[in-house]
Amino acid sequence: MLDQIKIVLSHTTHPGNIGATARAMKVMGLSKLALVNPARYPSAEATERASKAADILSNAVVYEDIHQAIAECRLIVGASVRTRSLPSRLVTPRELATIVEENLDNIPIAILFGTENSGLTNDELHLCHYQVYIPTNPDYSSLNLASAVQLISYEMRLAFSEMQQLPEQRVITNEQRISREQLEGLLAHFEKVMGETGYLNTDHRKQIDNRMSRLLSKAQITESENRVLRGFLSSIENSLSR
Amino acid sequence: MLDQIKIVLSHTTHPGNIGATARAMKVMGLSKLALVNPARYPSAEATERASKAADILSNAVVYEDIHQAIAECRLIVGASVRTRSLPSRLVTPRELATIVEENLDNIPIAILFGTENSGLTNDELHLCHYQVYIPTNPDYSSLNLASAVQLISYEMRLAFSEMQQLPEQRVITNEQRISREQLEGLLAHFEKVMGETGYLNTDHRKQIDNRMSRLLSKAQITESENRVLRGFLSSIENSLSR
Repeated sequence: MLDQIKIVLSHTTHPGNIGATARAMKVMGLSKLALVNPARYPSAEATERASKAADILSNAVVYEDIHQAIAECRLIVGASVRTRSLPSRLVTPRELATIVEENLDNIPIAILFGTENSGLTNDELHLCHYQVYIPTNPDYSSLNLASAVQLISYEMRLAFSEMQQLPEQRVITNEQRISREQLEGLLAHFEKVMGETGYLNTDHRKQIDNRMSRLLSKAQITESENRVLRGFLSSIENSLSR
Repeated sequence: MLDQIKIVLSHTTHPGNIGATARAMKVMGLSKLALVNPARYPSAEATERASKAADILSNAVVYEDIHQAIAECRLIVGASVRTRSLPSRLVTPRELATIVEENLDNIPIAILFGTENSGLTNDELHLCHYQVYIPTNPDYSSLNLASAVQLISYEMRLAFSEMQQLPEQRVITNEQRISREQLEGLLAHFEKVMGETGYLNTDHRKQIDNRMSRLLSKAQITESENRVLRGFLSSIENSLSR
């Protein structure tokens, strides 16, 4: 699905932004890049900023006319950080992700990005079914071109991942946590030693017990951490009995 | 609220990335930048890439030690594109936005970003309450540093915008967590008492220190819990000196 989304950069001024766009796309799994009348391209700067996404650049197609770049596309979206009064519906990147999900029959999909200084022209925006507006600081909305591509590609990837119900990528092999029984044992040990140092000889005894119980539960203590705490408590007892 | 989120770049190699980070932050309304041992800074390249976000750069504070950079912070998050087996909870940027919303009492908040090539070190990750994992293409996860900041800042801005619309939904009753500085103080107190009971007279001293550091970070200790632990440690010292 991400293969069916074409990023179209129109009249890009800085070749570094083209390279950074290639990297931004690849890191989110997008691969189709179209360049309409780039000011300087190919360029060593583009290649350098692409890092290891040079394949996206070498497969990029350069067009002289934006109509050719989007000729086969069935859903066309224009990116903007400004809201303009235009007939195309204005959506957030997150809403766009939903729209793309609903338009799997309308592929390929093109997302257009205008020149760095002034964005898409009115003529270009009139080609679009939707206008995607990235929320920014109203006092400083100067989002870098490749960063805009990054944010849109990120939302596309999230939508895609949810669609595919990808297996959890974030399985971590946490060290095993102690059992509730071990936790009770640890808490009892703390209380015993607190008694021996005289710390519980106070009206606040119940409050201290509650705080310790809450703290030890919340800490999600592992086996090895339990051994450290137990060892410390034993060392206190040994020191006190000497 | 966005003012209370501090972006901490540790050991950044390329000054261009520092400038691009400043721009990425400002465009989403973030302003607090901390730099820990940047390789080359200040730098004309950083200033150029910052575009009109030079104010973020001129207000950025440079530290030699990450502990100083996060001393006053009460919620600490590490950014990573890899999943590692660590005790801190792994969350997506979107989940992080929710967590930040729920932690309005635990400000300032620090989000740490490691060096370009290898990310945060294990020692740095051990300072974190959460690890935020940006979903990427498993075959190419080389997300640019400033792009990572851009994505996280974007999610923070969205959460902030939503909060502005729905103030009644974010009633927070959490007790305030201790600052990193208080946590370091607590850890030092533990180590001092462990020294006095003879518990640290072992080859495993470094391992014990690491476990305690990890445990205390993970536990998200509150002010009142801190007082209980400090009181207990003082009572041990008093008992030993009798």
